[in-house]
Amino acid sequence: MPSRLPAGGRRYVLRATLVFFVASFFAVQKTNFYPVILAGGSGTRFWPRSRRRRAKQVLALDGKHTMIQQTFARLAPLARRQRFWVITNRELQGEIARQLPQLQRAQIVAEPAARNTAPAIGLAAFLLRRLDPQAVLGMFPADHVIAGARRFRHTLARAIALAAAGPNLVVMGVPPSRPETGYGYIEAGERTGDAYRVRRFTEKPSRARAEKFLATGRYYWNSGMFVWSAETLAAALAQHLPRTANLLEEIAAAWGTRRFAAVFRRLYPRCENISVDYGVLEPRSAQGERGSRIYCLPADFGWSDLGSWAALHEHHAASDAARNVIEAAGCFTLDAAGNYIYSPKKFVAAVGIRDAVVVETEDALLVTTRAHAQEVGKVVKHLRATKLEKLL
Amino acid sequence: MPSRLPAGGRRYVLRATLVFFVASFFAVQKTNFYPVILAGGSGTRFWPRSRRRRAKQVLALDGKHTMIQQTFARLAPLARRQRFWVITNRELQGEIARQLPQLQRAQIVAEPAARNTAPAIGLAAFLLRRLDPQAVLGMFPADHVIAGARRFRHTLARAIALAAAGPNLVVMGVPPSRPETGYGYIEAGERTGDAYRVRRFTEKPSRARAEKFLATGRYYWNSGMFVWSAETLAAALAQHLPRTANLLEEIAAAWGTRRFAAVFRRLYPRCENISVDYGVLEPRSAQGERGSRIYCLPADFGWSDLGSWAALHEHHAASDAARNVIEAAGCFTLDAAGNYIYSPKKFVAAVGIRDAVVVETEDALLVTTRAHAQEVGKVVKHLRATKLEKLL
Repeated sequence: MPSRLPAGGRRYVLRATLVFFVASFFAVQKTNFYPVILAGGSGTRFWPRSRRRRAKQVLALDGKHTMIQQTFARLAPLARRQRFWVITNRELQGEIARQLPQLQRAQIVAEPAARNTAPAIGLAAFLLRRLDPQAVLGMFPADHVIAGARRFRHTLARAIALAAAGPNLVVMGVPPSRPETGYGYIEAGERTGDAYRVRRFTEKPSRARAEKFLATGRYYWNSGMFVWSAETLAAALAQHLPRTANLLEEIAAAWGTRRFAAVFRRLYPRCENISVDYGVLEPRSAQGERGSRIYCLPADFGWSDLGSWAALHEHHAASDAARNVIEAAGCFTLDAAGNYIYSPKKFVAAVGIRDAVVVETEDALLVTTRAHAQEVGKVVKHLRATKLEKLL
Repeated sequence: MPSRLPAGGRRYVLRATLVFFVASFFAVQKTNFYPVILAGGSGTRFWPRSRRRRAKQVLALDGKHTMIQQTFARLAPLARRQRFWVITNRELQGEIARQLPQLQRAQIVAEPAARNTAPAIGLAAFLLRRLDPQAVLGMFPADHVIAGARRFRHTLARAIALAAAGPNLVVMGVPPSRPETGYGYIEAGERTGDAYRVRRFTEKPSRARAEKFLATGRYYWNSGMFVWSAETLAAALAQHLPRTANLLEEIAAAWGTRRFAAVFRRLYPRCENISVDYGVLEPRSAQGERGSRIYCLPADFGWSDLGSWAALHEHHAASDAARNVIEAAGCFTLDAAGNYIYSPKKFVAAVGIRDAVVVETEDALLVTTRAHAQEVGKVVKHLRATKLEKLL
């Protein structure tokens, strides 16, 4: 399509765009941005590929790189590598250190006990507040996929600027494309610049409710990605989870000393086991649209939390016109459609089957359907109940 | 159920039964019965388990023993082991020799070229006619399952007696239980003792025709198991396939000499490539019900040619009430029904899937449905066409 602007105008637009990007880049560099990657979680929905020591975030479900490597690579242009933190568990710490050789071992923190996102991101806030009073934190789950990495960074730069500008809590909200019942929703209120003030957080809705949300056009999916200054988050934690905030402050005070490991091990398990959404954002949103200073930044960059084999099937480029996704050493399909088959070292033949999910690993074989993919967690429950430890 | 016979009557029945069995046994021993097991065939319908060198007959599809071992064990009580012949191909000869250590290597004959059943069984007839003029041959495909081995031997003893009594050709006919379109049918005529004279052989019928056959009650499935004296079969071959008969006679004449291997290799491939059904029985049945002297012996002993994964599913004892048949190192099913899953070294989880067939081997994975199981041969065709030799 030929541009309708005269040459001078085009040049102007080009220059303005360039200036904007360069300015954003320096703004981000100036604001002391610290990405915190949350990589805990045991991962049951991708069984038999995901296991306790091979959770979803350390698997290459999508392409050559693992999800945590992709998460790191996506953020790397926005922060020096010394500024990254990864919060994970002991089962995964070693594997993550292997997968992210760019980071120092001390940057990969293993929780002594799983305590959900509020203590995890809170610990980062209290630590960073001591180390760098200007610190802006971003919280990023390690197991999401984002198709448009550039658009992601563009949106994130705005979120960082917004968080650096005051005691603002910024959540990245994804415009919903279907009445998904597996996500939390954010109700957007008053518009301010390219963000919205948040009116309300809503837990996973019923189908009917999700449809209503979509119809209003005012709701966004809660992506689980947040940006705020260390100061703002620490203050919010002190207000809404004071007991946990005190414990985290005590742990942060021991950072860099020989006592740290012992203090961390002793106090962290006493923190409340709660998500930052439930523990901080929801109660805070009760202070009203203006009072809470929670902002939703619409984030349209091909986000998916990749919550099941069916979601992975949808996300993947199909192997053929019949929407089969087959990861195999070779394959032959005949009258087969809509299948997800993973058997990377074998020749796969699919004949007359539809919408099946078949996943093969060294010691296990899952046979299910796309419609039943969200029930795969029940297999893991069964394995736990029957103490089939080596399959967990 | 208590017997209604008085004690004396019960004793009489018992004694009569015993006398009958002992008499049958000696009758069989007297008639010089030679079982000929036909174990050629490349086996494509059980891909990926069946391969050129691991055809169906050398697989343990059903239980601990391979199909040819089961065939041998089923016949062993009726003939000394020196009297067995196995006719196979070069790909399978070594494996069969390993699986049947009871037999001498010379008893396992590899055809220099696949020539279907008429030359194979014919060769046995011409050889045996020279070695033992009283020989009665039975022809048994190595890849059928028979649930009732005792009833099988009982019926076979009668077939042998009938074949020894004159120039009779005896075919074992299975009472059909469904309008199967995958088998040939035999139309029974006049009853004579517990056998019927055969009126006609019919090729695999259409569904509608098969239904009509069933409705008449006069049709049997052609089991592919035949019994006749070496003399009778040799004469029938001379009449209906004279060129092949001459070649076979020449090969038989070289038996036991140093020339044999060369003669066999040179002449056998010149035999007609035709089944004994097409080449001998069908033309002979044109001589009329009495003239042909072909008899059908109803054979109700749980026979199946086990022609597909679906047939194997049907044949197998189900693992659970939902008719799943799962051969695995362990399994968990949830809302799954009617599946056949083979993955003997792995833990299998089946969730919400129905009527699927999943078969895993070291280098291949088949995913299909019971309804599509008969199309598995097309996978093998594809592998041949694309020269994926190592998967054949």
